[in-house]
Amino acid sequence: MFTKLRTTSGTRDFLPSEMVDQGYIEERFREVFRSWGYDEIRSPTIEFLDALTVGIGSELSDNMFKFQDFDGKIVALRSEMTAPVARIVASKMVSTPEPIRLSYITNVFRHSRSYVDRLREFWQAGVELIGLGTPDADAEVLALLFTSLEEVGLKDVRVDVSHAGLLKELLRAVSLDREKEHDLRALMGYRDWKQLEEFMRQNELPAELGEVFQGLGRARKLSEVSATFPLLSKFPDAQSFMKNLLAIHEILEDYGYADRLFFDFSLTRRIEYYTGIIFEASVPQVGSPIGGGGRYDDLIRKFGNIGVPATGFAIEVEKCLQALSAQGSSTPMSTGVRILVSSQSRNGGLKALDAIRKVGAIGLLDLRGENKAKTMDYARLAGIDFIVFVSDSALREPVTILNVQSNRIETVELRDFLKSIGGTA
Amino acid sequence: MFTKLRTTSGTRDFLPSEMVDQGYIEERFREVFRSWGYDEIRSPTIEFLDALTVGIGSELSDNMFKFQDFDGKIVALRSEMTAPVARIVASKMVSTPEPIRLSYITNVFRHSRSYVDRLREFWQAGVELIGLGTPDADAEVLALLFTSLEEVGLKDVRVDVSHAGLLKELLRAVSLDREKEHDLRALMGYRDWKQLEEFMRQNELPAELGEVFQGLGRARKLSEVSATFPLLSKFPDAQSFMKNLLAIHEILEDYGYADRLFFDFSLTRRIEYYTGIIFEASVPQVGSPIGGGGRYDDLIRKFGNIGVPATGFAIEVEKCLQALSAQGSSTPMSTGVRILVSSQSRNGGLKALDAIRKVGAIGLLDLRGENKAKTMDYARLAGIDFIVFVSDSALREPVTILNVQSNRIETVELRDFLKSIGGTA
Repeated sequence: MFTKLRTTSGTRDFLPSEMVDQGYIEERFREVFRSWGYDEIRSPTIEFLDALTVGIGSELSDNMFKFQDFDGKIVALRSEMTAPVARIVASKMVSTPEPIRLSYITNVFRHSRSYVDRLREFWQAGVELIGLGTPDADAEVLALLFTSLEEVGLKDVRVDVSHAGLLKELLRAVSLDREKEHDLRALMGYRDWKQLEEFMRQNELPAELGEVFQGLGRARKLSEVSATFPLLSKFPDAQSFMKNLLAIHEILEDYGYADRLFFDFSLTRRIEYYTGIIFEASVPQVGSPIGGGGRYDDLIRKFGNIGVPATGFAIEVEKCLQALSAQGSSTPMSTGVRILVSSQSRNGGLKALDAIRKVGAIGLLDLRGENKAKTMDYARLAGIDFIVFVSDSALREPVTILNVQSNRIETVELRDFLKSIGGTA
Repeated sequence: MFTKLRTTSGTRDFLPSEMVDQGYIEERFREVFRSWGYDEIRSPTIEFLDALTVGIGSELSDNMFKFQDFDGKIVALRSEMTAPVARIVASKMVSTPEPIRLSYITNVFRHSRSYVDRLREFWQAGVELIGLGTPDADAEVLALLFTSLEEVGLKDVRVDVSHAGLLKELLRAVSLDREKEHDLRALMGYRDWKQLEEFMRQNELPAELGEVFQGLGRARKLSEVSATFPLLSKFPDAQSFMKNLLAIHEILEDYGYADRLFFDFSLTRRIEYYTGIIFEASVPQVGSPIGGGGRYDDLIRKFGNIGVPATGFAIEVEKCLQALSAQGSSTPMSTGVRILVSSQSRNGGLKALDAIRKVGAIGLLDLRGENKAKTMDYARLAGIDFIVFVSDSALREPVTILNVQSNRIETVELRDFLKSIGGTA
């Protein structure tokens, strides 16, 4: 029965040291989201498949964990949080004044054959800004994305942006089908202009469109994108999408993030509900994006028959840790000073522990009751910083304190020792 | 498609205000566990059914959410955390020095027909103390249970204790089967001494055992239990179990919790892996227990062929909130001062937001750009405490601040205002 000791493919344990890192990142995200006014919410892990697949598209819904509930209904594990948030807003927050700012930190579940080394359960931290269709709203969400990633210690974060409707609109104008759209996007992504010209010829597309696709394919920075703007004059909808992107870019200048914003019109998201700007955040040291998102103005309507524009992002927590490690950074290792209390009198020991915990340090009672040498061996292996030896039950006498690292011993009032290690009370 | 808007039976959303309460309780537990040296861990939501059902017993494993993985393996959602912790210890922490103190705060999944209004997904906060078989270890875990429940604001917490082996041992001594054990336990629980006598007669049990069962059935406080001790002299194993309970009780006196510890030998836990003390915590205002646990010295062996004694508890987070509410208490409502920044200059507004967030308050940018009257309406409905109106882009001028509750307006330096509301920086 060797499955007893194994976790299933794509899932993992977080041992104490790993959980310190993961918890640190999650807590930083929680703190930033809170300080920007994004209230945390939580939704069920299991939902009706019908609810989870609204607007998601086939790729993601094919990869959901689905099963039959005890009631015989088809349910699934959530694969992302935007659809659940849309459901909540449409069903339970219809009278909440907009804009509504919501955030979440949660696990999601996906089975993807195309990403073999991808986790099937992983953690996302994300926000949704609901009720506004303006570039200001998208800019706030992008600025919060940059701020959040900086806050956990990531450097050189860049965000690539595109517009979910732009290529679609251009291709619609020349009646190309979805498969062709996929090919075109790939050619732009590979920056293969020769093949692109070939593609234009084969599909008998007008030459001016070729110029547009090449222009869009090459454009990365604002000036290059602005140069493509006149080329779009024959495609008014596409031009207005582009105008929207330029407006968002301009606002990001005020936030101080514009120089790390790049355009990439071959960008595509694996989720279908996007209607406006789409974006992905990355760092140079890691190949795949560490977060992404975009605008989805039609999703909430699909739940509630009320048209509510919205925009948001999700960050992958484990990817952030991977990126931090690739950048040679790390999260603060310690969760606090660990103090083992070894006492001949239980009462004295408990009093010492009380005092230690009150100042915010970690107090562990020595439950092994061995001799000093063995206690010190244990302390060294268990990551203990100090051992406090208590002799009297009233804790009136000074205590003997061993610094486990330096092996130095001092005899001192516990209260003075706790002050010396920076106890907070 | 009305399932789109509904959550499945036994699952729920946490709206922002509900999440504040839930998050508060979870954070308090996390903080107490941490300060006692119980390191947080996390395990996968989905595991092989084989791994999750080790030692659990049929009742709980019947009620697990089970399904087939993409790889064709039978998997399930975790229904509790002790078995996963045992798996982790047996597979990944064999060289960690004992005692190992671990904690978790996680959702678990159970489908129980017998508890119709029970949540099928709910949150547990718990600890496991691994590697010690002593009464001191059980006492620490019980003291931590009391401390944790006090820390979130619960009053009049009591813990009922029994021993998983005691009745079993007595019944084994007279060769009664498990069904009879169940009946006997029920009679003791109902305190139906007439029926108990009848039961003894029907099963031809020796009279001295009847005295034992009545004595155990009636005993609640230490003195009553001590009085039953001599009655057990013919059942040495049972007597040594009792001795163990009395030793734990004595240690709890030093912790100051002994007067809230009661014996209840009809107590039974729905999980089978317990081998020693078992216990349940409750408050008088709520019918069902809010937490429980016990000693399980054989579980880790079942994973790893290494005999490691262990003890622990799990608290149900939602039950704590229910209990707090039944006691007329509540968690601190607010997550911080909420300040809406309305600015004619985006730069000035962003500077103000930065200052607000730096002192730990919540800063929201006014993205609606409406007139003052409408902005005030929004602020009132959205739970905003203050609106800061910024006029210049450099934030050099004093700002106009509206107290949304009192409707009072003042013009003041932002920095002075932030000090006045107790900003932390």
